[in-house]
Amino acid sequence: MILILGANGYVGSAFKELLKSSNRAFKGFSRAEIDYTQLETLKEILEETKPEFLINAAGYTGKPNVDACETNKADCLNGNALLPGTIKKACETFDISWGHVSSGCIYTGDRDGGGGFTEECTPNFSFRTNNCSFYSGTKALGEELLVDAQKCYIWRLRIPFNDESSPRNYLNKLITYKSLLEAENSISHLEEFVAACVSCFEKEVPFGTYNLTNPGYITTREVTQLMIQEGKRRESKGQKNPFPKDFNFFEDEHDFMKKAANTPRSNCIMNTSKMEKAGIFMNPVQVALENSLKNWKST
Amino acid sequence: MILILGANGYVGSAFKELLKSSNRAFKGFSRAEIDYTQLETLKEILEETKPEFLINAAGYTGKPNVDACETNKADCLNGNALLPGTIKKACETFDISWGHVSSGCIYTGDRDGGGGFTEECTPNFSFRTNNCSFYSGTKALGEELLVDAQKCYIWRLRIPFNDESSPRNYLNKLITYKSLLEAENSISHLEEFVAACVSCFEKEVPFGTYNLTNPGYITTREVTQLMIQEGKRRESKGQKNPFPKDFNFFEDEHDFMKKAANTPRSNCIMNTSKMEKAGIFMNPVQVALENSLKNWKST
Repeated sequence: MILILGANGYVGSAFKELLKSSNRAFKGFSRAEIDYTQLETLKEILEETKPEFLINAAGYTGKPNVDACETNKADCLNGNALLPGTIKKACETFDISWGHVSSGCIYTGDRDGGGGFTEECTPNFSFRTNNCSFYSGTKALGEELLVDAQKCYIWRLRIPFNDESSPRNYLNKLITYKSLLEAENSISHLEEFVAACVSCFEKEVPFGTYNLTNPGYITTREVTQLMIQEGKRRESKGQKNPFPKDFNFFEDEHDFMKKAANTPRSNCIMNTSKMEKAGIFMNPVQVALENSLKNWKST
Repeated sequence: MILILGANGYVGSAFKELLKSSNRAFKGFSRAEIDYTQLETLKEILEETKPEFLINAAGYTGKPNVDACETNKADCLNGNALLPGTIKKACETFDISWGHVSSGCIYTGDRDGGGGFTEECTPNFSFRTNNCSFYSGTKALGEELLVDAQKCYIWRLRIPFNDESSPRNYLNKLITYKSLLEAENSISHLEEFVAACVSCFEKEVPFGTYNLTNPGYITTREVTQLMIQEGKRRESKGQKNPFPKDFNFFEDEHDFMKKAANTPRSNCIMNTSKMEKAGIFMNPVQVALENSLKNWKST
């Protein structure tokens, strides 16, 4: 049996869907049901349910976006940094293998020389580099707490998207904001991400950190162009076009920070060769995006 | 009634002693008795006890020293960074004034131009500056969580000492370690520190951060010389000399890090003029030290 923490979130729900569709036994908890951030409570859950694997899909991302983390620092620190440390303790008490959904948002830009940040690169968008949002700082600190974790996967997700209409979906975010920031990003198709996570423990790839983003990167402007295209395609077939005809962009990051944001965003390129060498594959980012847009439901 | 969290620790016990001796009503909780790190639990305590003021003397310092924080990161993060955030929430819910025992160990060295770090100086020994112990990182993060706290004092203690024989007492530490690191430090006489804290809310000085160290600074070698002197004084009066006749020192910080420590120490000089301007006074460091040594009990 697989135990999922944060089971009702955007990421946790995708894990549930995948495990259900592949007939894997699982049990999901949301923090509203039971406060698994408490070590003793979590230990009791593990003792009762005896999972063969635990998935931590819980975290604090801020609603509607990471700006909210700046004003809810305690919740953010608790959900993203302390919780992984607590789960580590509980899982190691019962010798349970587990995976933690971390984030690629602990990097900014590209690795020196290009090719994207590998799992070996020290985070450069963290408290340690003092240039980050509070959200990214706590995610990086969460990874620090797992530095000597045993039987543990750290799965790095980035800017999840899929064909579901959800305020957590990158595609929804892009059509909601009045203006967008042009940037290069590696991003993760949510269903491919959770499938890659499950592959990690099903294929028993070595424990450790994995960047699980769709190979390559894409600019915000490219995504909006794919949206405009998909809108036209739907119109040509007599369907409703749920996408805007055009998008506004901020002049630059300074303009974005001045007009729309309270805290800097991570925009970065990830290297996915470790995942591929381990035999885990995700579609190139353009393919994954086109598939999602084609099936994206507006309601 | 004054509520003390962390009431059985070295610092909490000194608060209890002071309040007892001045006939102030108080109630102290240790975390072993009740887990006040849980927001709901803490709110229940506040609702039941209705304190006029709360003192947070709880924290995670690591035993026997801060090296232990490197291997207990979750506990350290919970006790030093998250707990202040939780107390802030609880106190603001019930509009209760409170004080948090923070640490001057979020600085290293001296302020540019000398004179010690003031409360306006950004911590330079923190996650943000990426040069710190995990302990100092979490203490600085704890202050960050209180940046917009209302009706809150942040009291910065440093390397507490007094005349009590305790493994937490700086004087005991100095005679226990095989070799010492020569450094300049501002340090806090524990009973003077807690008296200064209580003065803050009794005199209703403005809320905010206060460096509560004995004015001035002292080198490790100077402290050991005072110990040798005090030993001689006791011997000349026919009393037992509890102090070593001589002390060993590391060659330098590099030698110390190589032979004895897992994580760098904060050695720093604090500026105490804000406290003095507010009408709160502590003895000059040499006076406070001589007083403590004169009365120091070896058992």
